[in-house]
Amino acid sequence: MKSIEFTKMHGLGNDFMVIDNLRQGLELSPQQILSLSDRHTGIGFDQLLVVEPASVDGVEFDYRIFNADGTEVEHCGNGARCFARFVSDRGMTKNRSIRVNTCNGVITLVLQDNGEVMVQMGVLVFEPAGVPFLADNEALFYDLEVAGENFQVGAASVGNPHVLLQVDDVDSAEVERLGPLIESHPRFPRRVNVSFMQIIDRQNIRLRVFERGVGETQACGSGACAAVAIAHRQGKLDNSVSVTLPGGELKIHWPNEKTSIEMTGPCSTVFEGQTRM
Amino acid sequence: MKSIEFTKMHGLGNDFMVIDNLRQGLELSPQQILSLSDRHTGIGFDQLLVVEPASVDGVEFDYRIFNADGTEVEHCGNGARCFARFVSDRGMTKNRSIRVNTCNGVITLVLQDNGEVMVQMGVLVFEPAGVPFLADNEALFYDLEVAGENFQVGAASVGNPHVLLQVDDVDSAEVERLGPLIESHPRFPRRVNVSFMQIIDRQNIRLRVFERGVGETQACGSGACAAVAIAHRQGKLDNSVSVTLPGGELKIHWPNEKTSIEMTGPCSTVFEGQTRM
Repeated sequence: MKSIEFTKMHGLGNDFMVIDNLRQGLELSPQQILSLSDRHTGIGFDQLLVVEPASVDGVEFDYRIFNADGTEVEHCGNGARCFARFVSDRGMTKNRSIRVNTCNGVITLVLQDNGEVMVQMGVLVFEPAGVPFLADNEALFYDLEVAGENFQVGAASVGNPHVLLQVDDVDSAEVERLGPLIESHPRFPRRVNVSFMQIIDRQNIRLRVFERGVGETQACGSGACAAVAIAHRQGKLDNSVSVTLPGGELKIHWPNEKTSIEMTGPCSTVFEGQTRM
Repeated sequence: MKSIEFTKMHGLGNDFMVIDNLRQGLELSPQQILSLSDRHTGIGFDQLLVVEPASVDGVEFDYRIFNADGTEVEHCGNGARCFARFVSDRGMTKNRSIRVNTCNGVITLVLQDNGEVMVQMGVLVFEPAGVPFLADNEALFYDLEVAGENFQVGAASVGNPHVLLQVDDVDSAEVERLGPLIESHPRFPRRVNVSFMQIIDRQNIRLRVFERGVGETQACGSGACAAVAIAHRQGKLDNSVSVTLPGGELKIHWPNEKTSIEMTGPCSTVFEGQTRM
């Protein structure tokens, strides 16, 4: 039995157990992570975030992310905001702009004066092979046939594959019916995250996202980035857009196609905890 | 903002936030309890248990229980086991047998040498009016018509109403279909908890319980008591029975019809926490 100190945080309802592993040096097995993730008999979380010593030059920390089943996963935007607040609130860094190493590469997190955090979510990929999406040529709009119906969609990768459908009203969008059908559509060989976007005006959208392997979530940061980038290229939105998700609001800024897309949003500390394992 | 210290515990997967209010003197509003109960943005729990100073003679503590929506509720067996371990582990009592006052009356909790806790769950009521159940006379078996089918059932109150159906195999029992139909059956004017029992032998049963207003749960202590008492009177079981529920095992002992039925089972401390509200 070893003592574990942790902090429980969330970003727009996406919730995390966060561990300072500079001080604790824990090595948790997938079975232990699964056990900790249980919401009735454990701590309960969507992902475990671990602050590790920097393993490459030019960064302050390594940022590792584990799903409830113990598998290590790619960059999570909601988690990255919590990570930045965690290392800042504990005095582990004095910088407002924090470079961290993830299993997907180095990212920069920037603390804002209002307590929110800006996360650089990376350069988007629109070539179909890079999404991956089976299409003859890159296009702003693709025809996608789903259960006999035709939908006009956009597609992009933000490190993970995304498809975007525009709807008149997200509240009545058929997320539950269409989400699973499109997620596993044969033209997306690695499956896909499916976003349903309602445009309010050129700077404001409402969005619901059916996440690959998860189902509809409260707030998908990469989905918000993909939606704004795709719809901006389609001429429908400006390059700074407020995205209202079921869990709350994210601000997306896309300086240009060659640069990393920027996502800014809130993060909250819920409690400090100690357990033994 | 006030600091709150708490312990997270569970009994067979039924999970609790436990607060020592002798030391803290907190007064939480229903809205605050609802907020704390959220599993993504709060602590997350099925019920909040509060240790209060004794308000009547002859007991060591008051034991208050709140549902996630902030409403105060009746005696919960899984919670009572955790309550006993909490006050014992923190040295708040030196006794192995602990008398506590609940909103349903005084109960006795007894710490066992193996770390489990025995809870006196009260004297059962079998008269139909006391369940309450609409029937002309008290009987060991009642015919209950549900959606055109006839079921032979037993009924009792353990402070809350229970109905018992015997099945050949709990794994294939139609808990999802029959549970809601029987829970709201017109012959149970205050609705009812519905138990499906498979008899292994006279000292061992398997049980699944569809709880009133909740749905199927991992482990319902009062359902286990009702099942053993009803089936014992029907001549099917002895008076000491091991009950295997989806969440684990409870041992039920019923000395005789005039005495309180005794439930013994495990309880676990998961973590210690501090939050602010």
